[in-house]
Amino acid sequence: MQDHTYKIMELVGSSEKSIEDAIQNAITRANATIRGMRWFEIVQTRGHIENGRVNHYQVVMKVGFTLEHV
Amino acid sequence: MQDHTYKIMELVGSSEKSIEDAIQNAITRANATIRGMRWFEIVQTRGHIENGRVNHYQVVMKVGFTLEHV
Amino acid sequence: MQDHTYKIMELVGSSEKSIEDAIQNAITRANATIRGMRWFEIVQTRGHIENGRVNHYQVVMKVGFTLEHV
Amino acid sequence: MQDHTYKIMELVGSSEKSIEDAIQNAITRANATIRGMRWFEIVQTRGHIENGRVNHYQVVMKVGFTLEHV
Amino acid sequence: MQDHTYKIMELVGSSEKSIEDAIQNAITRANATIRGMRWFEIVQTRGHIENGRVNHYQVVMKVGFTLEHV
Amino acid sequence: MQDHTYKIMELVGSSEKSIEDAIQNAITRANATIRGMRWFEIVQTRGHIENGRVNHYQVVMKVGFTLEHV
Amino acid sequence: MQDHTYKIMELVGSSEKSIEDAIQNAITRANATIRGMRWFEIVQTRGHIENGRVNHYQVVMKVGFTLEHV
Amino acid sequence: MQDHTYKIMELVGSSEKSIEDAIQNAITRANATIRGMRWFEIVQTRGHIENGRVNHYQVVMKVGFTLEHV
Amino acid sequence: MQDHTYKIMELVGSSEKSIEDAIQNAITRANATIRGMRWFEIVQTRGHIENGRVNHYQVVMKVGFTLEHV
Amino acid sequence: MQDHTYKIMELVGSSEKSIEDAIQNAITRANATIRGMRWFEIVQTRGHIENGRVNHYQVVMKVGFTLEHV
Amino acid sequence: MQDHTYKIMELVGSSEKSIEDAIQNAITRANATIRGMRWFEIVQTRGHIENGRVNHYQVVMKVGFTLEHV
Amino acid sequence: MQDHTYKIMELVGSSEKSIEDAIQNAITRANATIRGMRWFEIVQTRGHIENGRVNHYQVVMKVGFTLEHV
Repeated sequence: MQDHTYKIMELVGSSEKSIEDAIQNAITRANATIRGMRWFEIVQTRGHIENGRVNHYQVVMKVGFTLEHV
Repeated sequence: MQDHTYKIMELVGSSEKSIEDAIQNAITRANATIRGMRWFEIVQTRGHIENGRVNHYQVVMKVGFTLEHV
Repeated sequence: MQDHTYKIMELVGSSEKSIEDAIQNAITRANATIRGMRWFEIVQTRGHIENGRVNHYQVVMKVGFTLEHV
Repeated sequence: MQDHTYKIMELVGSSEKSIEDAIQNAITRANATIRGMRWFEIVQTRGHIENGRVNHYQVVMKVGFTLEHV
Repeated sequence: MQDHTYKIMELVGSSEKSIEDAIQNAITRANATIRGMRWFEIVQTRGHIENGRVNHYQVVMKVGFTLEHV
Repeated sequence: MQDHTYKIMELVGSSEKSIEDAIQNAITRANATIRGMRWFEIVQTRGHIENGRVNHYQVVMKVGFTLEHV
Repeated sequence: MQDHTYKIMELVGSSEKSIEDAIQNAITRANATIRGMRWFEIVQTRGHIENGRVNHYQVVMKVGFTLEHV
Repeated sequence: MQDHTYKIMELVGSSEKSIEDAIQNAITRANATIRGMRWFEIVQTRGHIENGRVNHYQVVMKVGFTLEHV
Repeated sequence: MQDHTYKIMELVGSSEKSIEDAIQNAITRANATIRGMRWFEIVQTRGHIENGRVNHYQVVMKVGFTLEHV
Repeated sequence: MQDHTYKIMELVGSSEKSIEDAIQNAITRANATIRGMRWFEIVQTRGHIENGRVNHYQVVMKVGFTLEHV
Repeated sequence: MQDHTYKIMELVGSSEKSIEDAIQNAITRANATIRGMRWFEIVQTRGHIENGRVNHYQVVMKVGFTLEHV
Repeated sequence: MQDHTYKIMELVGSSEKSIEDAIQNAITRANATIRGMRWFEIVQTRGHIENGRVNHYQVVMKVGFTLEHV
C-alpha cells in the first residue's frame, strides 16, 4: 500500500455562503471527472466585495488523488 | 478599464462567532470611510482563548480598493 | 506583567463540522492538561475526502500559554 | 456566477526577447488544448546565459482556467 | 538625514503594454496625492488572459515615501 | 471589546544608535498623526555601511492601531 | 529550441526504502502516461511512523515535462 | 476517529551515515518516552564538515503523535 | 557524539529594556525546568505600544536542547 | 558530465531602461572576471523613484557558474 | 550612477555583547579585504546558550558592495 | 572563539548515485580552494530525468567557512 503514487492538482472553489462551502463546491465539481481524491490543503483564502459586503469566498486549494497502477 | 490603479490596505477583523464574521466585521467598519473595496485576501487567522474556549477570532486580511482617477 | 514568558505548542485538531469546530476540539483536548492557554494561530488548514465529500477538517495550529514563575 | 470552479496549472514559457514574450509564448501554446484561461501569476523568472549574454528567459507561471459544469 | 521615517504603501498597477508600464502607471496615479516617493519593490506580477492573449499585466508593488517631520 | 477593528501600516524607522532606537523613532514620528497604536512587528532589519562602519540601522516594521467606531 | 513550453505537475511518491527510491517510484509511475519528463524538484519530504520505525517515506515533488508543439 | 487530536514536536536527529538514518535515530530516541508517533516531516537538512568530508548529517523534523483522550 | 538527538521548543520572552533582554528572560525562565539548552534562533520580534512608546518587546524564539540517552 | 559543481553568486544589476536590461548589465559586468556563467534567477525586482518617475530598476539575481575541476 | 553593479555576500558575525555588535564585527572583519560595502540586511539572528545564559549572538547577514567597472 | 566570522557560499553538487553523494561531491570540489568549511545546509534538492529514470541529483546547498583573522 505504501507504494501508491499520488498526483496533486490545484483548484479554486467559490461560494456565497462560507469557506467550508467553497471547499466542498470545488471537490464536488472535480469529483465529476477525477476518481480517488484523498485529501485537500488550503493554499489561500480570498473573496470579492460588493457594496461593503463579502459577495463570495474563493478558496485556492491543493487536492491529492491516487494514481492507479497501469 | 485595465488602467485602474488599486491600493491595498491591511486590516484585522474580529468576531466571537466565526472566521467569516470576523472578515465581514472588518469590511463593514472600513466601508464607513473607504469607497470602492473590491477584494480581500486572508493573511493570518488567529484568536484569543479564555478558560479553554475560543473567545474571539482575529483575521488579518489585505483589502484592495480602486483609486479613482483625479 | 510584561516579563511573562510564554511557550508555544503545535496541535492538530479535527472535526467533521467546520474549521472553527476543529480549532475548539484541539483546545478542549489540550485544556485537560495545560493551564493558561492564551492565543492560537492557524498554521495550515487541510482535510480528508471520501467519496467526493469532505470527511473531516484538520487544522494545524500554534497555541501559546503562560509559563508560571517558579 | 460565483459558483464557478477554476483549475490552476503550472507552466514554463521561454523567449529570447523578453519576460513578457515568454509569458505569451506559454499561453499561446497552452491555448491549443485548454479553453477558458482567465489569469496568470508569475512564480519565478529565470534564464540561460551563453558567452556572457542572456540566451533566453524562462518564466514559471501559474495559469487559472474555468472548469465548465458537467 | 538618517533619522528620516518612511511609510510603505501597497499598490496594484496595470497596463496592456508591459510590466514596466504597469509599474509606472501606479506611480503616476499615486503621485497625484503622495509626495516624496523614493523606491518601489515588486511583490507579485500577474495578469488577465482573454482569448489566449495577455489582456493586461497587473503588478502588486510596495512603494516607500518619506514622512516629513511635523 | 472583541469587535474592534485594527489597521496595520508599514513603516521604516532609522537610527545611528541601535535597532531598538530605530523602532522607537518610527513610532514617535507616526504618533504625531496616528492615534491608538497598539503593537509592532519587525519585518526586516537592515542598515547602511560607510567606511566599514554601520552608519545607521533601518527597521521595516508593521504597526497596528485601533480603528474607532464611527 | 528555447521556445519550448514546459508543464509542471506535482506528484507524491512513496517507498519503504529511501528518499531516492520514493522519487524514482513516482517518476516510474508517471512515465506510463507522460512523455518528455525532464526534471524534478523536491517540495517536501515526509513519512509515516509505525511502532517507532519509519514505515515509508513520502516525497512531494514537482516534475517538469515538455509540451510538444501541436 | 476523526476527532483525534495530534501534537507536533520538533526534533533534530543526526547520523554519520545518511539522511534516512538521522531521521530514524531521532524517532528511535523519542520512542523511549513518546507513544503514538504517526508521521514526520523534514523541516531542514544540514550537517557538519570536517577536513573536507561530511562528518554527520543533521535533520530537523516535525513529528506528529496522537493525544489520547483523558 | 554526533548521534545526539535534540528537541526544539518555541518560547516567547518579553522585556521592557531590549531585544537581547527579552531573549535572556525566556532562557532564564526555561532554565528552571529544562536541562541542556544549547542554542536559540529568533522567529519573530514584536512588541506592545502604549502612548506612543514601546512598552515592552516580545521575542518569539526556538530553543534547542539535548535529549539525554535513556 | 553530471558531476560538475556549480557556484551561485548574488548580484544586483540596474538600468534606466527595463528589467531585462538590468539583468544583462549585471551579467556583462560579471563576465569581465567570471567564466562559465550558465543561468540566472531573479530574487527581487525593485527600483528608485524621482519626481514621480521610475529613475532606474534594480534586479537582485542569483547567477550560477561552473567550477572547473582542479 | 544607476548602472553600478553590486555583489551580495552572506556573512555570519558573532558577539558576546549584542546583536548590533555582532553585525559590526562581521563588517569589520570583511572590511579587511572587501572595498565598497554599502548596506547589510539581517537574514537570521541566533545564538549559543551555556548554563542558562546567552553565551554569544550570531547574526547571519547579507552585505552588498559595489563592483568597480573594469 | 565566539568572535569568529563566517562566510557562507552557495554551491550546487550533483551525483548519479544519491543525495548524500551530491552533497559530498560539492564539498570535495570546494575543498580544493577553500579552507575551513564547517557546515552545510540544503537549500533545494532537484534532478534531471532521462527516459523515465533519475539521471542525476542536484543539491543546492549553503556552505559556511571560517574567515581567518588578518
